[in-house]
Amino acid sequence: MKGIRALARHLDISIGTVSRALNGKPDVNPETRARVMEAARALGYTPNQSGRSLRQGVTNTIGFMIEMSPDANASGDDFFMGVFEGVQTVLNRHRLDLVVFPCPAEENPVDYLSRLVGRGMVDAMIISATRRRDDRIDFLEKTQLPFIALGRSESGPDMRWIDLDFEGVAHSSVARLVAKGHRRIALAIPDGDINLGHVFHDAYRAALSQHGIAYNPALLFRVARVLECGDDLVTALLALPELPSAILLSSEVMSLSLYRKLQERGIRPGRDIAVIGFRDNPRTSFLTPSLTCHSISLSDLGQTLAETLLAGIPAFADLYPGRDRNLIWPMALVQGESDDFDIVPER
Amino acid sequence: MKGIRALARHLDISIGTVSRALNGKPDVNPETRARVMEAARALGYTPNQSGRSLRQGVTNTIGFMIEMSPDANASGDDFFMGVFEGVQTVLNRHRLDLVVFPCPAEENPVDYLSRLVGRGMVDAMIISATRRRDDRIDFLEKTQLPFIALGRSESGPDMRWIDLDFEGVAHSSVARLVAKGHRRIALAIPDGDINLGHVFHDAYRAALSQHGIAYNPALLFRVARVLECGDDLVTALLALPELPSAILLSSEVMSLSLYRKLQERGIRPGRDIAVIGFRDNPRTSFLTPSLTCHSISLSDLGQTLAETLLAGIPAFADLYPGRDRNLIWPMALVQGESDDFDIVPER
Repeated sequence: MKGIRALARHLDISIGTVSRALNGKPDVNPETRARVMEAARALGYTPNQSGRSLRQGVTNTIGFMIEMSPDANASGDDFFMGVFEGVQTVLNRHRLDLVVFPCPAEENPVDYLSRLVGRGMVDAMIISATRRRDDRIDFLEKTQLPFIALGRSESGPDMRWIDLDFEGVAHSSVARLVAKGHRRIALAIPDGDINLGHVFHDAYRAALSQHGIAYNPALLFRVARVLECGDDLVTALLALPELPSAILLSSEVMSLSLYRKLQERGIRPGRDIAVIGFRDNPRTSFLTPSLTCHSISLSDLGQTLAETLLAGIPAFADLYPGRDRNLIWPMALVQGESDDFDIVPER
Repeated sequence: MKGIRALARHLDISIGTVSRALNGKPDVNPETRARVMEAARALGYTPNQSGRSLRQGVTNTIGFMIEMSPDANASGDDFFMGVFEGVQTVLNRHRLDLVVFPCPAEENPVDYLSRLVGRGMVDAMIISATRRRDDRIDFLEKTQLPFIALGRSESGPDMRWIDLDFEGVAHSSVARLVAKGHRRIALAIPDGDINLGHVFHDAYRAALSQHGIAYNPALLFRVARVLECGDDLVTALLALPELPSAILLSSEVMSLSLYRKLQERGIRPGRDIAVIGFRDNPRTSFLTPSLTCHSISLSDLGQTLAETLLAGIPAFADLYPGRDRNLIWPMALVQGESDDFDIVPER
């Protein structure tokens, strides 16, 4: 075992440079860093700032936990890539790095998170895909590791979180459809315990009620696989005594298979049934007819997420005084052709 | 500063349990782990296995570097989610964790990699998006950190790598088109220095040559943004004295905007121009006409990638004796309707 002094002497490099190389500081050229690391490995170097990863603010790394659900391939990925970009914009200001923890579908999320956090490689965490009750939040609060959730939850009433404006999306969608004469408005949400399904469902009920439309549980569809939902959804729609005149999607990605399966049955989106998607996803922007959806800047969302996290960490708090602990992220309706027709009342 | 013994006494938990909690072992209940971490933080615990992250095989964590290119949101993400799933299947056997390093678009990839590796949180690396010459490979070889590349490169002639079978895809696509009477076959590849563009381009030239078709540089299109390439591509196609009868896409995601923009100009994919995509991506599987492309199991690819990496690490090598250092991953043509028409010779 050798210390940093012996390593510097062996390499004939200053202690400062060796230290910066070993600590991942950016102002060391890659060649030098490689030499230092090789020597550290060969000589069995022992850092004397042991335990640094257990002290707050010293790994200079922030973790972001995402879930590898069976649908992650299909729906969540480009969303998170966009958010990561925004998060990194903020972290880069402070020479902090983002690492992503992809939780395997078959693992218990709290076991996974506690193991990864236990490895001591991060100073703070961002979690996503919150459940209505979420044990990860209880765990993080106990460890006192700073964190923020992308998604609200009944757990952690005092935690920092940012969530999308499901209420606003449900209200503007229902209002638009009602103005066009629609009364039979269906909703598709993901199956399972992810909180956004509950939140969107509640918001949809509230919006219907506001327009004096009775909630009809037969018009609620829970889909198992977001990307491949079209078949099941169209079968279920056709099994109803009367086709709904409109459907709201809690994920715009549902539209890809829904459009295809509707068309196979001779039902034209935007003519025979109105479809409103959730987010203005580049991947659904080439559909014909174009999908009515809601705009969001993922980069701005990611930046605000990171700033709100840092606002809760003493070393950074004074830099972000204006950040509230919680935020509902607004989304504006983008008119497409998928719901651009009026219902003529039957009587 | 306290050691593990003091921590165990303080918590009234066995040293073994405290050690397992601190080291991220899975057999500790989350409640206990949280208590241990909180106490470690409060008491200023110092681990005595200092430097463990600089010795091979002791962080139990493997890094996977991906790039947040402007196009990453659009094209790479679901590919990587699928590959991660396969990699994790193998790593889980050995209680190793995968962490993802997303390199910001504006950062130099080798600076980024050297900084992240320098943080000492991984025992081995997987890199992707290889360049024809790739400084990251030289860096990793110098550090002697075990690694594998998803993508070949002229750098690192002895490194471990797995790459997709661009040659096979180009050959089967060209052979299929030639059999249908096509001679004017265009190619779209990404702009920039990513090696797959070079490899696919070379393979396309070789395939044309094999069928006695002269290479025409006017039929090669380099696209800046994979997802939104349609506009530029259709404009460039229409600027030619004669429309090519077929186009090969090095990314199937290009088809989304290409279909739409062709249709806007009254050119029907699968009737007026044959289109062959690259991979059978779930996101393009709802196109009409269906896209001829090439099948791949991302999970299998990820598993083999992880096994090939582990085969190069002494502690695991004997478990994976059958793994070659390098592998071209085969892909089989999936017939769609996007190229299902014959060209009638003009004379």
